[in-house]
Amino acid sequence: MGDTPVVRVIAISGSLRSASSNSALVQAAVRLAPAGVELSIYRELADIPPFNPDLDTEAVPVAVSRFRAVLQASDAVLISSPEYAHGVSGVLKNALDWVVSSGEFIDKPIALINASARATHAHASLSETLTTMSGNVVKDASITIPLAGTALDADGNLGDSCLSISLRSAIEALVLATAARRAL
Amino acid sequence: MGDTPVVRVIAISGSLRSASSNSALVQAAVRLAPAGVELSIYRELADIPPFNPDLDTEAVPVAVSRFRAVLQASDAVLISSPEYAHGVSGVLKNALDWVVSSGEFIDKPIALINASARATHAHASLSETLTTMSGNVVKDASITIPLAGTALDADGNLGDSCLSISLRSAIEALVLATAARRAL
Repeated sequence: MGDTPVVRVIAISGSLRSASSNSALVQAAVRLAPAGVELSIYRELADIPPFNPDLDTEAVPVAVSRFRAVLQASDAVLISSPEYAHGVSGVLKNALDWVVSSGEFIDKPIALINASARATHAHASLSETLTTMSGNVVKDASITIPLAGTALDADGNLGDSCLSISLRSAIEALVLATAARRAL
Repeated sequence: MGDTPVVRVIAISGSLRSASSNSALVQAAVRLAPAGVELSIYRELADIPPFNPDLDTEAVPVAVSRFRAVLQASDAVLISSPEYAHGVSGVLKNALDWVVSSGEFIDKPIALINASARATHAHASLSETLTTMSGNVVKDASITIPLAGTALDADGNLGDSCLSISLRSAIEALVLATAARRAL
């Protein structure tokens, strides 16, 4: 067996709130990533302009071309996003709207982490959208990790070891899906 | 019978594309509005900043307070919005996210016009979100008006008289729902 290549995962929180559970999950994922996984956080969601198909030409806005480049440079994507009024966070969906035609999600393994057991509508809608964009929403990596009432410690670690194990297993499932894609 | 009060309807297209079918429908609605209905178009969707709950305080961004004021000054809302990757337009959802807590949609009669018979996912998601926001999505005002292949004339009138009749009947259903609310 030779060296296993590094798996690069980009993690996106669909919330801009500083105390967001989804952002906390994404930060916890960075700490839980196993060896051989480079998990970094995309922090520029607020810079993406309102999607306008008329501007989706060769010279797209800078923030959009950066978002696309980050996705292209990643083997897999981890998303944790809130539900607002039984729908997907508009901020996240606006960013996704910019990459429907450019195709960065095609065949990309995706972990869709749900931070609330009650947020079933947004989770299902997001899964439908990513699948429609030909993304590979990895079933074993798409789990609910109910953070409500769970304190993260000062280092951003998940207090509940069961939740940590769940999140780590989701990342591992994402790595397996990436390896399977590479073997094709 | 005294004079019937004017019904003010604000119409929103969920697309920023200049040749958008949804924007065309909204423009056609202005021309088809019956006497006693003041139907105007909200054109500032692109100015609404990314929703951030941390900024949803007393001093919200100007574009947000203008959006809320426009909704407050309206008796009813007409929305025509595209589907992107089987989901709601992120631009529109982002604007709606800003009015979840402020409550401008509570009990407001809403016409949800679908410009494509294939766009069932976004239409259903949007209806779910608006209903969750306690909006009154008026069934008889929420119809599909398939614009694909239908040319609007130079004045923006719907070429197909059947489509014109459908759109006008949707506006009339919205007016009836507004009258019913006033009578409460």
